[in-house]
Amino acid sequence: MSVINVGIIGASGYTGLELVKILIKHPKFNLSYVANSEGGVMLSDLHPSLSGVYECKVLKTDVDELAQECELVFLAVPHQTAMAYVKPLIAKGVKVVDLSADYRLTQDLYEEFYCPHTDVQNLSHAVYGLPEINREALKSAKLVANPGCFPTSAILGLLPFMEKRLKNTPIIIDAKTGVSGAGKKLSDVTHFVNVNDNLFAYNPLMHRHAPEIAQKLHVDFDEVNFVPYLVPVTRGMISSIYIQVSGDFDAFELLREFYKDEQHVRVCKNPVDMKSVSGTNFCDIYVKQKGSVLFISSAIDNLMRGASSQAVVNANIMMGVDESAGIPNIAYVP
Amino acid sequence: MSVINVGIIGASGYTGLELVKILIKHPKFNLSYVANSEGGVMLSDLHPSLSGVYECKVLKTDVDELAQECELVFLAVPHQTAMAYVKPLIAKGVKVVDLSADYRLTQDLYEEFYCPHTDVQNLSHAVYGLPEINREALKSAKLVANPGCFPTSAILGLLPFMEKRLKNTPIIIDAKTGVSGAGKKLSDVTHFVNVNDNLFAYNPLMHRHAPEIAQKLHVDFDEVNFVPYLVPVTRGMISSIYIQVSGDFDAFELLREFYKDEQHVRVCKNPVDMKSVSGTNFCDIYVKQKGSVLFISSAIDNLMRGASSQAVVNANIMMGVDESAGIPNIAYVP
Amino acid sequence: MSVINVGIIGASGYTGLELVKILIKHPKFNLSYVANSEGGVMLSDLHPSLSGVYECKVLKTDVDELAQECELVFLAVPHQTAMAYVKPLIAKGVKVVDLSADYRLTQDLYEEFYCPHTDVQNLSHAVYGLPEINREALKSAKLVANPGCFPTSAILGLLPFMEKRLKNTPIIIDAKTGVSGAGKKLSDVTHFVNVNDNLFAYNPLMHRHAPEIAQKLHVDFDEVNFVPYLVPVTRGMISSIYIQVSGDFDAFELLREFYKDEQHVRVCKNPVDMKSVSGTNFCDIYVKQKGSVLFISSAIDNLMRGASSQAVVNANIMMGVDESAGIPNIAYVP
Amino acid sequence: MSVINVGIIGASGYTGLELVKILIKHPKFNLSYVANSEGGVMLSDLHPSLSGVYECKVLKTDVDELAQECELVFLAVPHQTAMAYVKPLIAKGVKVVDLSADYRLTQDLYEEFYCPHTDVQNLSHAVYGLPEINREALKSAKLVANPGCFPTSAILGLLPFMEKRLKNTPIIIDAKTGVSGAGKKLSDVTHFVNVNDNLFAYNPLMHRHAPEIAQKLHVDFDEVNFVPYLVPVTRGMISSIYIQVSGDFDAFELLREFYKDEQHVRVCKNPVDMKSVSGTNFCDIYVKQKGSVLFISSAIDNLMRGASSQAVVNANIMMGVDESAGIPNIAYVP
Repeated sequence: MSVINVGIIGASGYTGLELVKILIKHPKFNLSYVANSEGGVMLSDLHPSLSGVYECKVLKTDVDELAQECELVFLAVPHQTAMAYVKPLIAKGVKVVDLSADYRLTQDLYEEFYCPHTDVQNLSHAVYGLPEINREALKSAKLVANPGCFPTSAILGLLPFMEKRLKNTPIIIDAKTGVSGAGKKLSDVTHFVNVNDNLFAYNPLMHRHAPEIAQKLHVDFDEVNFVPYLVPVTRGMISSIYIQVSGDFDAFELLREFYKDEQHVRVCKNPVDMKSVSGTNFCDIYVKQKGSVLFISSAIDNLMRGASSQAVVNANIMMGVDESAGIPNIAYVP
Repeated sequence: MSVINVGIIGASGYTGLELVKILIKHPKFNLSYVANSEGGVMLSDLHPSLSGVYECKVLKTDVDELAQECELVFLAVPHQTAMAYVKPLIAKGVKVVDLSADYRLTQDLYEEFYCPHTDVQNLSHAVYGLPEINREALKSAKLVANPGCFPTSAILGLLPFMEKRLKNTPIIIDAKTGVSGAGKKLSDVTHFVNVNDNLFAYNPLMHRHAPEIAQKLHVDFDEVNFVPYLVPVTRGMISSIYIQVSGDFDAFELLREFYKDEQHVRVCKNPVDMKSVSGTNFCDIYVKQKGSVLFISSAIDNLMRGASSQAVVNANIMMGVDESAGIPNIAYVP
Repeated sequence: MSVINVGIIGASGYTGLELVKILIKHPKFNLSYVANSEGGVMLSDLHPSLSGVYECKVLKTDVDELAQECELVFLAVPHQTAMAYVKPLIAKGVKVVDLSADYRLTQDLYEEFYCPHTDVQNLSHAVYGLPEINREALKSAKLVANPGCFPTSAILGLLPFMEKRLKNTPIIIDAKTGVSGAGKKLSDVTHFVNVNDNLFAYNPLMHRHAPEIAQKLHVDFDEVNFVPYLVPVTRGMISSIYIQVSGDFDAFELLREFYKDEQHVRVCKNPVDMKSVSGTNFCDIYVKQKGSVLFISSAIDNLMRGASSQAVVNANIMMGVDESAGIPNIAYVP
Repeated sequence: MSVINVGIIGASGYTGLELVKILIKHPKFNLSYVANSEGGVMLSDLHPSLSGVYECKVLKTDVDELAQECELVFLAVPHQTAMAYVKPLIAKGVKVVDLSADYRLTQDLYEEFYCPHTDVQNLSHAVYGLPEINREALKSAKLVANPGCFPTSAILGLLPFMEKRLKNTPIIIDAKTGVSGAGKKLSDVTHFVNVNDNLFAYNPLMHRHAPEIAQKLHVDFDEVNFVPYLVPVTRGMISSIYIQVSGDFDAFELLREFYKDEQHVRVCKNPVDMKSVSGTNFCDIYVKQKGSVLFISSAIDNLMRGASSQAVVNANIMMGVDESAGIPNIAYVP
């Protein structure tokens, strides 16, 4: 198989950087187009750690040029901006993995939590890019909505146990995320002095990732109680999940069986930690039962499984490439 | 009123240091006896930050000497060790605030979660030192069991809402603690490399503070689901609490009303953070409701409200001193 | 002695908060005026940790009002802004402790490193507020230029050894500072992701504190080689100082002798650390000699000895109050 | 070229883990022997992040077995232990890269700073494994002494400027290291509470890496003034170097010219940071001149360029493999 040319729109942020880091080592993809909204700088000026490793000029995004160059493009831009690019890209036959929220929700939920949707046509065929639930659909997808980081960790933790769950009992998700999830933007919650040696919840019970979780799990939004905490960590995310279950079963065995054929989920006998998945596409999951309550702890790297490496897995599936091709599995430990 | 002589047994650890820091500035207490198991060193050798501030020799614990010197003593020693001191101290008429777990639980629960109890006689009259629930009993107490850190934050968060709680629904407590809670002892979970930029649960659903929470709230141990996480923070603790409630009420108003006369609980309109209570005896509480689910976030300094400053509040009450005398209220912010 | 009314202009930042924290516990000063440029908010909205501890309205700065209310004012505003307030305040007979750089340097040096000076008249009588070198002058000062944080730690470390120093050899100061030194302002160097688990120098050999160090030590700016590093710490500062010396002497004894009457300098037998001075006005100094090279390690809390607590010491001296009245000496340890 | 079998003795520590992480992805080496002193566990039990990535049994070290299996072995064991393995391994014709200090120094210096040397014969032909100075000798080396982390960063920073240096002036090296440099061993200096939000020097002017730096730079030990600081960072190291120079030259150009053919040194226009080299074999160097003083800031990952990745570079050279084969160059950023 010959090399497949791919591009990135939105190379300036953390997820853009992670995409570059994966794609320049990818055995099947060739990163042939790197752009942001302004263009004109060297990529290593945006990301000095790439100096002497990968040097290229960042282009000003031009959909026509991109369409001539690439078969697939990763969009690492804010929601709303993404829609504006998807429309012409799909029209020109370029496959798209969109890392924003624009194609993750049904129109009504999207418009309730974000803004008016201006590309309903493509929304109708977009595939939610969680391979563990949509692998088949991804194979023929033209447009993939890459999942949010919180939903990825929460859904993968919950999926195996949804059948055991007592109907009409609350799903509790107490999540903890590293600061890179807030992006490069300067704000009070990313100021070192506010975060270091500290901890706090934000948007409790109101975060926009809650409807995404509910919709993909086919439960009511009312049943999902989602509270994220910001922890003084650069990257990583753990969701603490509590549900009520019925019936007699071995939660660990159920979990292991459920994911036995999945290469990017690790079922753990000991409580998971953030670092063991840092820099990888793994989702590590631990479960423990006490009476009718199930505690599930699900860890991912928010920038990788929660964004960029999952995006490349999706691209692999879309392009008929081995699912784990080029996907990092060596953690940033210690 | 003349000055009251007090002592500390167990001056080497973090809670011992915090006791010293409070007592040497206390307007009514005179710290006249500081001891640990070996004695013989200068206090500022154990705690260099006290150099030039407070210099004294650490004594080898001698109950007779202590009883001659002090009216009240703080025990900052491990459980089991504490019992051995309490017996003779009480016998000699010294009042005791015990920071260990030895007098917090009923005998059967204690022996299930800790070890055989060797001082059942004093256990029978020990008062659980949470002023918000036991203020009257504390006034005449001879022996106070100072609460654990997790129970303090969890109970104070839950108390106002227990009447609204739906019977037989699980109480979920997802707590996060700084590393000082693990003490000075060297272990894998206190090694910087394991903790920094990382996060993990430990003893999920099995921690010994769960029965303490259950007993003080008069609920079944089965109903309390308690999972602590270690966060890369030196001091501080936040409990995320989720319960199901019934009836129509304003959770914030209920909370404010419940604590309106308490000077060491602050009811917050915004989500609480660890730093705002660091170095103080405050418990900051935030509540938010979504349908039948109540989310309560309760923050304390694990070494202060979770140990030493609460111990001094208890001592204040026991000795008839103003409850907030000498209690720090200025947070370590920024 | 009756209580002395004092005020703060610039209550929004970190040094403003530290001033408030000290002054509301001060036995001789009464904080009767708290202002910033806009006014109109509650102080506890700017600094939530003060909720329930100290509530007051922040006023819009009005020099006339202030002059009627206060005998002394602390200016915690940026350089250049400070000058504009000093002129009328001094004219109205209010004593001023200025925490900015505006009155620290001679006019020519100031204008070289900052901007044109618009209050040369008051510059001529301003006293540099390092008590260890200017105690006598401070007693009658009307305007005190509170030293910069780096100069405080560097000068106190160097002072005892200047006579032993080999002329015309470089003074090397490799300083490390916590992030609070950069203030509340949002910038790339205060973004958590850039600072956490990282380290870097900034403005090497070009920082504006270098001329201040040179001038107060009466050496040429050319001789001072000053490089600051930003470390992933909230507060604290250590200067590593290297000089060449001649003659036969015991560096530790010289240091101890030099500071034997100073209550806010601690001479240490072991290498100093940041935390042991955190929250206090102490400067901890360690020295070690190897041949002709002297290594001096000098630690302060950048917000306290490097700003606010030193400012209150200066005010104490100016107002004839005991120098250590109200000055915190209990470190934020652990 | 066929695959080359290599082994690791000492797989339990951080450098052992880094060696595994590199070697299992290496295009030319096959990791066929992994041992520690006891053996018997799974490697993923020692390093859980390797679960599902690389599973093998850790063997009890057996030199005969190893010699049959491997052409080259990496020793990641403490000094003194290393010597005991090197003797029989070399006798059996196995090439060795020793990450300990045992073959870095001349016998007399080694015995002064460490302990008696028991393998003087092999010491005589060991090559110091800094490719930038010993590339030719490494090609035919049988035994390579892998440099210490501090010496690597200090020597690479100093090398280009040694000719410009003023004789008999002190070399100042103020280094800052992450905590992983202290290894997995539990001690007060690796306890999170002592390190977090703190900073301190250790072994100032007395560290054992100082003679290594002196010897490799061919200067007197008296001229090297080396002070390491422990910073609250997991991995990474920056050496601040100050020397006095003479003559008229452009320091940046000299640096760039010196390293123009080196692929693992990056010459930087802006001050270096730790993270940009984290996870890689790069040494990033920045230089700035002020009069006769040169400030050099040299950053490496202490576990990579300071230990394991440099060890693999040395092995590459010894085995005639491309020097950068399998060497990670993608930094752990953000």
